[in-house]
Amino acid sequence: MRALLSVSDKSGIVEFAKGLADMGWEIVSTGGTYRTLKEAGIPVTEIDEVTKFPECFEGRVKTLNPYVHGGILYKRGDEGHRKQAEELGITGIDLVCVNLYPFKETIERTDDFDEIIENIDIGGPTMVRSAAKNFQDVLIVTDAADYAPVLEALREGKDDLAFRRDLMIKAFEHTAAYDAMIANYMNQRFNEGFGRYQFISGKKVFDTRYGENPHQQGALYEFGDFFTKNFHTLKGEASFNNLTDINGAVKIASSFGDEPAVCIVKHGNPCGFAIKSDLLESYTEALKCDPISAFGGVVAVNGTVDKELAEKMNEIFLEVIIAADFTPEAVEVFAPKKRIKLFSQKSDRLHIAGDRHDFKHIEGGFVYQTADCICDNEVKQAKQMSETVATPQEMKDLEIAWKVAGLTKSNCVVYVKDSAMVAVGMGMTSRVDAAQCALKKAKEVGLDVSGAAMASEAFFPFRDSVDAAAEAGVRAIIEPGGSIRDDEVIQAANEHGIALYFTGVRHFLH
Amino acid sequence: MRALLSVSDKSGIVEFAKGLADMGWEIVSTGGTYRTLKEAGIPVTEIDEVTKFPECFEGRVKTLNPYVHGGILYKRGDEGHRKQAEELGITGIDLVCVNLYPFKETIERTDDFDEIIENIDIGGPTMVRSAAKNFQDVLIVTDAADYAPVLEALREGKDDLAFRRDLMIKAFEHTAAYDAMIANYMNQRFNEGFGRYQFISGKKVFDTRYGENPHQQGALYEFGDFFTKNFHTLKGEASFNNLTDINGAVKIASSFGDEPAVCIVKHGNPCGFAIKSDLLESYTEALKCDPISAFGGVVAVNGTVDKELAEKMNEIFLEVIIAADFTPEAVEVFAPKKRIKLFSQKSDRLHIAGDRHDFKHIEGGFVYQTADCICDNEVKQAKQMSETVATPQEMKDLEIAWKVAGLTKSNCVVYVKDSAMVAVGMGMTSRVDAAQCALKKAKEVGLDVSGAAMASEAFFPFRDSVDAAAEAGVRAIIEPGGSIRDDEVIQAANEHGIALYFTGVRHFLH
Repeated sequence: MRALLSVSDKSGIVEFAKGLADMGWEIVSTGGTYRTLKEAGIPVTEIDEVTKFPECFEGRVKTLNPYVHGGILYKRGDEGHRKQAEELGITGIDLVCVNLYPFKETIERTDDFDEIIENIDIGGPTMVRSAAKNFQDVLIVTDAADYAPVLEALREGKDDLAFRRDLMIKAFEHTAAYDAMIANYMNQRFNEGFGRYQFISGKKVFDTRYGENPHQQGALYEFGDFFTKNFHTLKGEASFNNLTDINGAVKIASSFGDEPAVCIVKHGNPCGFAIKSDLLESYTEALKCDPISAFGGVVAVNGTVDKELAEKMNEIFLEVIIAADFTPEAVEVFAPKKRIKLFSQKSDRLHIAGDRHDFKHIEGGFVYQTADCICDNEVKQAKQMSETVATPQEMKDLEIAWKVAGLTKSNCVVYVKDSAMVAVGMGMTSRVDAAQCALKKAKEVGLDVSGAAMASEAFFPFRDSVDAAAEAGVRAIIEPGGSIRDDEVIQAANEHGIALYFTGVRHFLH
Repeated sequence: MRALLSVSDKSGIVEFAKGLADMGWEIVSTGGTYRTLKEAGIPVTEIDEVTKFPECFEGRVKTLNPYVHGGILYKRGDEGHRKQAEELGITGIDLVCVNLYPFKETIERTDDFDEIIENIDIGGPTMVRSAAKNFQDVLIVTDAADYAPVLEALREGKDDLAFRRDLMIKAFEHTAAYDAMIANYMNQRFNEGFGRYQFISGKKVFDTRYGENPHQQGALYEFGDFFTKNFHTLKGEASFNNLTDINGAVKIASSFGDEPAVCIVKHGNPCGFAIKSDLLESYTEALKCDPISAFGGVVAVNGTVDKELAEKMNEIFLEVIIAADFTPEAVEVFAPKKRIKLFSQKSDRLHIAGDRHDFKHIEGGFVYQTADCICDNEVKQAKQMSETVATPQEMKDLEIAWKVAGLTKSNCVVYVKDSAMVAVGMGMTSRVDAAQCALKKAKEVGLDVSGAAMASEAFFPFRDSVDAAAEAGVRAIIEPGGSIRDDEVIQAANEHGIALYFTGVRHFLH
């Protein structure tokens, strides 16, 4: 048996080659891999002896050769193929171990286009694809994590069809991801990220028990390694809906630097939010906004959950807590509760991946866009439209309300008082309904909205929402502006002595 | 100059080859393409003369050869490369025209795994990738639509770097899409569609003017050709948000076979829906549910919009109408209104693509799931839980309410009376709030909910929503059931003489 080893990432290759050699395999290799194995004292044949052709054009052509690909591709079970191989002097290659030079590292390292082009591997993917096509006769190894399992399967004669087929699937995943990255990079560089094709590639992090509903199957995929590195399960198992809720909650709670923010989310939307002097106070205030919705909710904590906070949180049923971290004592507190799930980013504060693009499935395809981002200066640079000026605390409340509104499903209106959300209306087809439902709810739960700041993620088309806000005691309003009736809205604010600011930026979120 | 032509789809290849030959290009070709060109009387060299090696293993190895790939890959501007090419007897190949055997057609045609594997092209993608890597020196043509532009560019000396680079990007898009399809197919076949990697590939249909907000850039991509075939712009230009709203509206309006359904959507959620005796009546009734939200809304019409309906629709400002079709007279009616947009599926009734999977971006990756589907028999087979039985009209209303609720953002509650939606609460963090907001709205717009049927896409956790519904005069309720307090909910229904049905299926939508 003969193996062809040609890897960019050399880790584990010596042990793998040794394992094969010990079983009597002949090893053929190229360039750097050849030297590595030679130095390690492993008997190895150079590729030239197989190709009967010199490596040429500075390595651009090495393995693109019928002796290599014939050796990989001929069907061992086919009499005609075997005979032809013999006549042409083609010897079988029964295992191909190739990993590609990571294109991602190249584009992260350099902007030099010639260098990037030079690093596009041609021979590697071809060997991978040849061997994958003939997987029934050839083992195709593209992942160092498979070296040990492959050796074990060979030793124990367990390299059956299912085993080889799985390696084949991995091989095509490897080449698909590679070319998708090249195509996306080129479109990013030359077509502003919106080329003729868009490739969204994800690596599975884990299967979820089911999808959005129990009759659906679901899984989480990551682009890079954000979840592998930053999402640690301390208790329970994240469901499909937990993941989308966590996404919403963390985006909001991480929007204020390292301030002790706490956000409670249900069905993707916030039903509680506060930034007070510490996390315990923030959580306590956040909970007040809508304690009924918070039941079974997802809480994002921008810091470390300690014992005291854990005990407070443990008073009601929360389904998920995601925090920058938990103290061991805090984890202990939750231990007796079966249903609560704990996830940590093992960090000082919550982070998001910060993806540059966003997309949504629609029947038959998807819409793709550059990500929305609520910049810190949108509130600072907002234009004062009213005679009244916001006080410093109102200004802070406006900033909080504005950021939360931008991360809440449209139409939405957010009311914030003393750095805590006191009312929120969201996801409705009418903005005025959203504003009014929020106020009605606040009244029900006994929260006093008077003195609050209010934000709307898109402009108020009429003055009615301002009038209703004034009646509830709202003192400051921020919105994008841009309605043809802006003057009426400004007039309403002046009549009520409300401080009104326009940002000029809309943040629809659907 | 020498061109290598090897195509699976032969359309236009003779004219292209002739165009090249007329300019003095030498044509090299393989198998079927060679025969096609020969028969057309075009001077053509067979690939064997280049490779100096016989085609072998039933065509598995033809072009995987250093004379081919050296000819493609050596840098023309590099003295060393040129010298080496000369020494090795390698002649340049300056244009590569390859299109791959469409893997999609194979898997649509057959389930035979050996045949599918045999149809995975190895030589083709390698030539495409080699030529793309050396795009500065080699034109890579992978799309028949480029034959004429390439000939023209060559004739006029306009095959500059930008031109070649664009062909290169197209080439990597071609190979990425090909391997992504293979990997997805294998994972579908052997890993239930949830393999280690997931590839979502889309071809651009059009750029949108901007994304969800004006500061974002956006575009529509399709998996196959659903939009190209079924989405026809008669007036205006679909925005990013129009596309997601249209998706929501069409899903609802197409859920009832060829019945004359009309759905009005705002911010992705329905604010009007009806199925009456004809489309005009359906639209008129749909509009009554929430005429304020309908302002600037998206209307999906499951049939042909005629003059009469158009005149009725034209009475208020609608942003978008998507219909199975429009009569020419109807299009005329809208002509004077600048802002309205008209889209047609050029069909008898509205269709959706029926994608088998669904996905959502979350920071760092995406969640992926099998698509939700509200089956026709869910209502028919729903379990009667109350003493009271629904009347046939109530049963029909329950069916409509159930389907609409399953396609409305959670939490949602839908009230339907005489086949028209009379109230809807959606997208809220609390189900009871959604139920109550809907009733409050109905009262505001003067709609009588008494006698209505009501659906909730997930179970009612408490009896409170049933009590409130009874007070409003609701006569029938459908929900999945499954709360630990189901008995209280059933008891409430019996107390109020309401017909209560459990489907056993939940339809969260976020």
